[in-house]
Amino acid sequence: MSYFRDNIEQLTGYSPGYQPRGGDVVKLNTNENPYPPSPAVIEAIRGFDPEKLRRYPQPLADDFRSAAAKLLGVSAGNIMATNGGDDLLTIAVRSFCGPGRALAYPVPTYSLYPVLAKIQDCPAVEVPFDGDFNLPAALADASAALTIVCNPNAPTASFVQPAEIEKLARRLEGKGVVLVDEAYVDYAPANCIGLVKSCGNVIILRSLSKGYSLAGLRFGYAVANEGLIDGMMKVKDSYNVDAIAIAAATAAITDRKYFQTNIDRIKSQRTILTESLRGLGFELRDSSTNFLPARCPDGNASDMHQKLAKRNIYVRYFNLPGLTDKLRITVGTEEQNRRLVDALNELIRK
Amino acid sequence: MSYFRDNIEQLTGYSPGYQPRGGDVVKLNTNENPYPPSPAVIEAIRGFDPEKLRRYPQPLADDFRSAAAKLLGVSAGNIMATNGGDDLLTIAVRSFCGPGRALAYPVPTYSLYPVLAKIQDCPAVEVPFDGDFNLPAALADASAALTIVCNPNAPTASFVQPAEIEKLARRLEGKGVVLVDEAYVDYAPANCIGLVKSCGNVIILRSLSKGYSLAGLRFGYAVANEGLIDGMMKVKDSYNVDAIAIAAATAAITDRKYFQTNIDRIKSQRTILTESLRGLGFELRDSSTNFLPARCPDGNASDMHQKLAKRNIYVRYFNLPGLTDKLRITVGTEEQNRRLVDALNELIRK
Repeated sequence: MSYFRDNIEQLTGYSPGYQPRGGDVVKLNTNENPYPPSPAVIEAIRGFDPEKLRRYPQPLADDFRSAAAKLLGVSAGNIMATNGGDDLLTIAVRSFCGPGRALAYPVPTYSLYPVLAKIQDCPAVEVPFDGDFNLPAALADASAALTIVCNPNAPTASFVQPAEIEKLARRLEGKGVVLVDEAYVDYAPANCIGLVKSCGNVIILRSLSKGYSLAGLRFGYAVANEGLIDGMMKVKDSYNVDAIAIAAATAAITDRKYFQTNIDRIKSQRTILTESLRGLGFELRDSSTNFLPARCPDGNASDMHQKLAKRNIYVRYFNLPGLTDKLRITVGTEEQNRRLVDALNELIRK
Repeated sequence: MSYFRDNIEQLTGYSPGYQPRGGDVVKLNTNENPYPPSPAVIEAIRGFDPEKLRRYPQPLADDFRSAAAKLLGVSAGNIMATNGGDDLLTIAVRSFCGPGRALAYPVPTYSLYPVLAKIQDCPAVEVPFDGDFNLPAALADASAALTIVCNPNAPTASFVQPAEIEKLARRLEGKGVVLVDEAYVDYAPANCIGLVKSCGNVIILRSLSKGYSLAGLRFGYAVANEGLIDGMMKVKDSYNVDAIAIAAATAAITDRKYFQTNIDRIKSQRTILTESLRGLGFELRDSSTNFLPARCPDGNASDMHQKLAKRNIYVRYFNLPGLTDKLRITVGTEEQNRRLVDALNELIRK
């Protein structure tokens, strides 16, 4: 006999990417930013007032909300801070989905979405992207209570234009909410923030993990109209982000210059790495993210993934339909990328 | 038309205690520890390696798990770290409760429990304590999928002996899980950790907010058998505690000497404050926590609460059945307690 609900008992949990410890490792497997966070973040942490540890943090992360609102040209009431983007995904599924209230999303995408649907015991409607990763029309037909579009998408690195997502949101008006998971948007050509004002049923997810080099801090946020924010506030844990994280995240989004330099460096490395991989016979499209899904020259990504790991170079391999021929490679520093390319060059010529 | 589930739409969210900002304030309203955290915690934060911010944190908070396991004489597999105790409560309700799978608890107690039941849309069975705050026999009769006993209990400051909770767990064996919310246990005469080995259906909740002066850090943990921990691991967010919090929390529980000194100071202040309040005509039992539910001499706690707030002294008032004649006063420093007692003395004599 299990004490757990049946859906939990039967669930296979989400598997985070492998985190090798220490050593001389080239770690390009979990889409982390290869550069450190802004010095302003380090300063906020080092100078943090211990008195604030003793007290409960701001329940709504007011300092961060104000800074984010200013940055995006919205009101503080349009922002909800969360313990990483995953916390927002969990809150949204708990707010909108349940028995008879489906979660829909195009596939392949972030493998956490179906796990959250199973935990919530709600229907999951998976609609395949077409070959060019356009938004499938059938996604709106599902009329789900919550539709999540990861944009740019993981693990495909593809990007759907905001106008397409606006069309989806309009078709779902009065029926369901569209959550645009913009975890990778800092590397993309555009974003959907404008839809918060033009559509009443859109929630934007942002994360500081990638663009701001703060995966270890766990900080994300929602941007949406006040009605949606207020409702989700009732579902979030009362003090879901801690006081140090609020201070560090506020410092991070305020240092625009460092952020832009960081992003530009990665984009330029992305171009170089893309060309190098193509030169080695890998097949890949232009990426709108900080990672490259690259088809191995011989189509055997599992084998290549293991051989790289033996050389302390970690990339991600998904044993999933449509992905077994590809490696997902995070764009690293110039040196990391060169070490990867050198290793691939040797392994392919063997 | 609302996009939210009906249960969320109808929900009144949990209200955190008021957090006055700055100024010369005596803040005895949210059960925070009046003393700062251990110097080892400050050191862990100041010396934190920024490289760890860039990377995802340990998904299972391994460093903390090992330290907590050593401290409690259990295995790392018996520990799950959470983003404050509230994160564990949320995870437990999502793991065990749902339609037809009730959450039961004795009342009055922590006002978050019914909110979590409403969010999960599961039945809530509230069983009143008797006049001496003994565990009601009807609690086991409910055969709920999850029974939470806050022990020591908030807002009553009462304590149920571990043997009584063991009896409850045995009666529920094979039927449901008993979660003992030990958020305040550091101030109590005993604890229920021993039940993790003797009963297969017990989860202990611990928090670093009170005893370790780390309310701002958001860190709690579960202690239970590996089967219960493994199942709840599937439900928690993948990276639910951040890297700085893991380092700080590990430092906090490792510095035993500071912890014991901190607790002893509060317990001795608790004795002095209890006697002072009784001397002023307040009625109160001995407390097993760091707060005192005290009946006002004239039974009008709402009025007294407001008068104190005007003097920048904040205590908690609950406009709830059975509580309108009481103030809930957090034990502060010697100076804070004296300022409170002086103010009460003046207000009562007026």
